[in-house]
Amino acid sequence: MARIVLKFGGTSVGDPDRIRNAARKVKAEVERGNQVAVVVSAMSGATNQLVKWVNDIAPIHDPAEYDMVVATGEQVTIGLMALALQQMGVKSRSWGSWQIPIRTDDAHAKARILAIDTGPLGAAMSGGEVPIVPGFQGVSPGGRVTTLGRGGSDTSAVALAAALGADRCDIYTDVDGVYTTDPRIVERARKIDRVTYEEMLEMASLGSKVLQTRSVELAMNHRVRVQVLSSFDAALGSDLPGTLVVDEDEIMAQGIEKSVVSGIAYSKDDAKVTVTRVADQPGVAAAIFGPLADANINVDMIVQNVSLDGSSTDITFTVPRTDLARAIQCLEKSKADLRFDAVKSDTNVAKVSVIGVGMRSHAGVALAMFRTLADKGINIQVISTSEIKISVLVAAEYTELAVRALHSAYGLDAA
Amino acid sequence: MARIVLKFGGTSVGDPDRIRNAARKVKAEVERGNQVAVVVSAMSGATNQLVKWVNDIAPIHDPAEYDMVVATGEQVTIGLMALALQQMGVKSRSWGSWQIPIRTDDAHAKARILAIDTGPLGAAMSGGEVPIVPGFQGVSPGGRVTTLGRGGSDTSAVALAAALGADRCDIYTDVDGVYTTDPRIVERARKIDRVTYEEMLEMASLGSKVLQTRSVELAMNHRVRVQVLSSFDAALGSDLPGTLVVDEDEIMAQGIEKSVVSGIAYSKDDAKVTVTRVADQPGVAAAIFGPLADANINVDMIVQNVSLDGSSTDITFTVPRTDLARAIQCLEKSKADLRFDAVKSDTNVAKVSVIGVGMRSHAGVALAMFRTLADKGINIQVISTSEIKISVLVAAEYTELAVRALHSAYGLDAA
Repeated sequence: MARIVLKFGGTSVGDPDRIRNAARKVKAEVERGNQVAVVVSAMSGATNQLVKWVNDIAPIHDPAEYDMVVATGEQVTIGLMALALQQMGVKSRSWGSWQIPIRTDDAHAKARILAIDTGPLGAAMSGGEVPIVPGFQGVSPGGRVTTLGRGGSDTSAVALAAALGADRCDIYTDVDGVYTTDPRIVERARKIDRVTYEEMLEMASLGSKVLQTRSVELAMNHRVRVQVLSSFDAALGSDLPGTLVVDEDEIMAQGIEKSVVSGIAYSKDDAKVTVTRVADQPGVAAAIFGPLADANINVDMIVQNVSLDGSSTDITFTVPRTDLARAIQCLEKSKADLRFDAVKSDTNVAKVSVIGVGMRSHAGVALAMFRTLADKGINIQVISTSEIKISVLVAAEYTELAVRALHSAYGLDAA
Repeated sequence: MARIVLKFGGTSVGDPDRIRNAARKVKAEVERGNQVAVVVSAMSGATNQLVKWVNDIAPIHDPAEYDMVVATGEQVTIGLMALALQQMGVKSRSWGSWQIPIRTDDAHAKARILAIDTGPLGAAMSGGEVPIVPGFQGVSPGGRVTTLGRGGSDTSAVALAAALGADRCDIYTDVDGVYTTDPRIVERARKIDRVTYEEMLEMASLGSKVLQTRSVELAMNHRVRVQVLSSFDAALGSDLPGTLVVDEDEIMAQGIEKSVVSGIAYSKDDAKVTVTRVADQPGVAAAIFGPLADANINVDMIVQNVSLDGSSTDITFTVPRTDLARAIQCLEKSKADLRFDAVKSDTNVAKVSVIGVGMRSHAGVALAMFRTLADKGINIQVISTSEIKISVLVAAEYTELAVRALHSAYGLDAA
């Protein structure tokens, strides 16, 4: 017997038929003799409608009231899911977050889970009942409804799995796992069976929107084994139908040979900014990035060119494309202090990344990347690296070519 | 300073514009220096959608889960209403029924309110804040969500007004008050300024669906002064824009001359059933109506004819039209025991009623009714009376003629 938390996203519970389909997955786990708890999102579209009403009435609003309204989406689904299970002969009941309770801080609309009282839920599970819990929400110390921010249902599921000491947390979504790269670009992309938390974090933050970043961090901190799998997959009962996100040690211990590179990610959400002929003196980087940080603009890749004439230099960096206008405004404001020549920007760029824990112990991964791109005539504009990731910025038109070439070069193509 | 509970029905909070409109009514009461609490229904259509999902997934369902799902409709509205008021500069916050709490029994889907803890709400009101409370729901002794049944929001409002010791409970709806009869039939129908609880009860149960019957009973028991008024009426600040439902003593004390008859009601929701040539012996009525009661079929008007031949008689009664098929089935089943000749039914009937507390002390009200109908050539099929009401069953085609003639005969036509 194992204890498992199953989580179903918005598209997986988007209408009564899909809720029934999800309930069948739950029933199958119960029939395997497992103790099961379920976390559900709001029906797809529901949260957007609720947010729209809130913004219509109050564009700038009390987040506590926003939470009261928006949290109702999941409360609908927990009741419907419990009914669908009962209809199939599975003992089940819904638990509102205040009934459990799921305690959070009082940072409305972006609350953090502090504790989940698993006493009643654990007892219900031991008694053969499947508790259905709303994702994305909790109760503040003052007893008000809180929400965790968009995508928070994954976090709820992982937190519940951690609190229950669950053997696994299965995240059902509309893709059947994590792929070596975007299958829409590379036909021969492969589903990855096992990926480490660290790799998953890089993939999530790089735009493979399979799992919410916060939920992966939480899973890593509490060593919750997370499986990503499709709720639309007919294959029930397969041992590992999706992608398992686990600790590196678990993968090593199983003696599975892992490729050096796990996947190729890309993102077209960034814009490149170059500040030309800035005075090359101590503190200039802080002078540029300080105001951007104050404006809550997240700067990603940064390159400072070698000084051209000993007194001035160019600084290039990327920001989210949606923040570009604000970033330029911000820099122009400090022009008098910075004494730069001009701010140039380019939205016609893509970030392509190679990810893999294997590169920690393998030299030459970066070199292989640069050679592959050079062979295809792709110019690298900016480079940034971490322990398990190398990212390059290229002209957007080369995105697909670069991803395909790298996918082949690192031996990721399916046979 | 007065303490007032305002209640807005589904059409009054049907979209963001209407919620803003309702919020303006609340603000006007606050600006008059009153302490105000607000009860809201779900946005019109919301509850039906939720019920539809429940029935799709489980036609026969766990009422506790039904309640979890269906109660979310009002939880959306309380947040939106609080936001609309804040947006207008009025201090406000939403209170979920479990946050107050509104304690009910555990009869899910048809719960009764047992107690409302008004401590925190009263404190908020004294501090100049407007609490927004969801109608139609509460929490069971076991801490689960309950609902009061359709139309329960009126009951919530009256119960809250009683608990808060409010001076008045204003029920905002899509009509501007209670009329002497249906204005679609009688152009010269008049809005009634003041009506007694007893009269309102008769009107409500006879199909003037302005106030839910249970809420009127509750108001009568706790002497809550209820005003029915339109949320779409532009006239703010009028002293008595709607219809006030109060104790007979209050109307008398004000020296207002009340007409003997307050209103003419009608209903086309009934069917007439005649059981012919039943054995005329003790216990036969019980033998007929027992099985119907067991089948939860509500029998209304009953007439037993004088025995025709000393040994058998005809019994005529009305049942809700929606229960007619079941009623006939029920009677045919007991045919062997009852030894009647046949069951005849007629759905082509209407019940027309004359209502007024004044008839207690005035003779001749019934006679005037019978004469008026006779003058128009309308045949009376069944008669039933109570202390403050006379109802007759007529052929449906005469409904409008009967209502108009009676409205004139009792001097109710507007000048």
